[in-house]
Amino acid sequence: MPIVSKPAEPSPAPSPPGSAPEPTRRRILSGVQPSGKLHLGNYFGAIQQHIALQDEGDCFYFIADYHALTSLRDPAQVRANVLDVALDYLALGLDPRRATFFRQSDVPEVTELAWILACVTGMGLLEKGHSYKDKLARGLVPSVGLFTYPVLMAADILIYRSHLVPVGQDQVQHIEMTRDMAGSLHAQYGVTIFPLPEYRLDRAAVVPGIDGKKMSKSYGNTIDIFAEGKPLKKTVMSIVTDSTPLEAPKDPENCNVFKLYQLMATPAEQEELAARYRAGNFGYGTAKTLLLEKIDTRFAPARARRKELAADLSAVERVLAEGAARARKEAQATLELVRRTVGLR
Amino acid sequence: MPIVSKPAEPSPAPSPPGSAPEPTRRRILSGVQPSGKLHLGNYFGAIQQHIALQDEGDCFYFIADYHALTSLRDPAQVRANVLDVALDYLALGLDPRRATFFRQSDVPEVTELAWILACVTGMGLLEKGHSYKDKLARGLVPSVGLFTYPVLMAADILIYRSHLVPVGQDQVQHIEMTRDMAGSLHAQYGVTIFPLPEYRLDRAAVVPGIDGKKMSKSYGNTIDIFAEGKPLKKTVMSIVTDSTPLEAPKDPENCNVFKLYQLMATPAEQEELAARYRAGNFGYGTAKTLLLEKIDTRFAPARARRKELAADLSAVERVLAEGAARARKEAQATLELVRRTVGLR
Repeated sequence: MPIVSKPAEPSPAPSPPGSAPEPTRRRILSGVQPSGKLHLGNYFGAIQQHIALQDEGDCFYFIADYHALTSLRDPAQVRANVLDVALDYLALGLDPRRATFFRQSDVPEVTELAWILACVTGMGLLEKGHSYKDKLARGLVPSVGLFTYPVLMAADILIYRSHLVPVGQDQVQHIEMTRDMAGSLHAQYGVTIFPLPEYRLDRAAVVPGIDGKKMSKSYGNTIDIFAEGKPLKKTVMSIVTDSTPLEAPKDPENCNVFKLYQLMATPAEQEELAARYRAGNFGYGTAKTLLLEKIDTRFAPARARRKELAADLSAVERVLAEGAARARKEAQATLELVRRTVGLR
Repeated sequence: MPIVSKPAEPSPAPSPPGSAPEPTRRRILSGVQPSGKLHLGNYFGAIQQHIALQDEGDCFYFIADYHALTSLRDPAQVRANVLDVALDYLALGLDPRRATFFRQSDVPEVTELAWILACVTGMGLLEKGHSYKDKLARGLVPSVGLFTYPVLMAADILIYRSHLVPVGQDQVQHIEMTRDMAGSLHAQYGVTIFPLPEYRLDRAAVVPGIDGKKMSKSYGNTIDIFAEGKPLKKTVMSIVTDSTPLEAPKDPENCNVFKLYQLMATPAEQEELAARYRAGNFGYGTAKTLLLEKIDTRFAPARARRKELAADLSAVERVLAEGAARARKEAQATLELVRRTVGLR
């Protein structure tokens, strides 16, 4: 369990500067919603790429528990989800010696920066938010938190003076809003405090769910990352395929099983399986068994690591506490500048 | 300079409880806008009554610098106004040994509570805010801060578990909103954390300005509390009176000079001056001279104390720091309860 057992080991990366105007390494920020079990769509669509970024820059990854309050009302579930997401990310390879990994609410300074940003942000900016409008259109009774969510998100990004935020398409507007808010504060006070953050679009991996639609929790068609044994087998075996007879040649490109297999197989393995599809006398059941083996093998180390981590939660808490201490130092330095800029000091 | 020279003297009142569910004494809260020079309208309409409350309960009075950011963009002016209001209140009798007097932004926990309240507050509640609608109607470009101001105000009130808030008529709705937000959090989480705060309407003292309209900075008709010498004389002498000839009897009830005199004179003095008005052969100039003497005498001790305080600003800062330490302890205890309630801990 190297990730957690050496929490005090110094980071090989240069440590983040104290009150220097900007971090010397490219800072990459991502907020992780603590919204329950992760599935292969999450992994191949975002998590895998986000974790890989820890080799590219100075990553600050936080578990967005303040944001979770806009939708979750059950405190036990908030706590459980936060812990789950911490275990998931650490198990999947997030390395707290390289990335700064913490709970959002361990840096309450973001809520103060959010207030200051709210004072330089016009209502019009939030009113045109797609995400808010979508929720209204879906008949959700909007809370003030849902409406001002982009301001807190901007504070999250700006307080660490982040340069880059990896996002899905649905979050691009929030990064643009963040740039607007930073620009507005700069313009209204004649200062430059924040880098204007860029976004990087997650490579949109095609991850079909077991029914062939995009894998998504809301469709109930997911394969969980940490599933194993009978439940995993049952899920994989229920992937929808067409009714081509066993003997007939089959088209791998139109098969959900093959599409999922592609995500985890080497090019040679993909080629070999495609050839068997096309040759005929090959059943989907066999393909599913091969896919099951791939999933099982691919995530076996993460599953094992997750069990180890779950057996020593105090070590996980220590990781989060150390991440929070690093993040908070950065946040306090930024906030101090902002406070002086606006006259709070 | 007793107010500031004994900052470390223990309060004669029982000290506020740490994490006990509710303060044992009736807690009274008031936020003071750092909006520049105070005038007699402010004093007789609100300040005098608010300061008197320090004998009735456990007063928490804060200088609302976070709120000031919704309208002020000049950091030097924010800082100057905050200091001015601290000097004004201490000079006018606010006793930091009895009341807890502090800067709002020295307790940043309020911004965190504001976020949590925002998540349980429907947009409809804020959209019906008179103050926001008035500002819209007056053509102000609304900021998000202006819109969410009532949430921060609710957090200010609730974080100290206040029982009573003295307010002007225009603020009554904000107290009702605060009760709604507290009730909403209680209902959604099945807890009781906050007393539902009551308001006490400021006794609406009739304080005419020098033009006879209600004294108000926006009318430019004020008499400043700390004015003295020639500027004070010039202002008082310019109070508008009617053109009744010197010899004719005059009606004190319809005279702005008399109305102002009433605020500071004993009943016997008021009776005597009213008799001279009615007798005739008495000019408004004489009445103004009597009023000038009253103002000058009434505020002479406060003016002297203000000069003493201004000569030792570090002592004033110490008072605010000590107030902040007391307030913050309370705020942290409340916030800890709230965090556990919503699942942030």
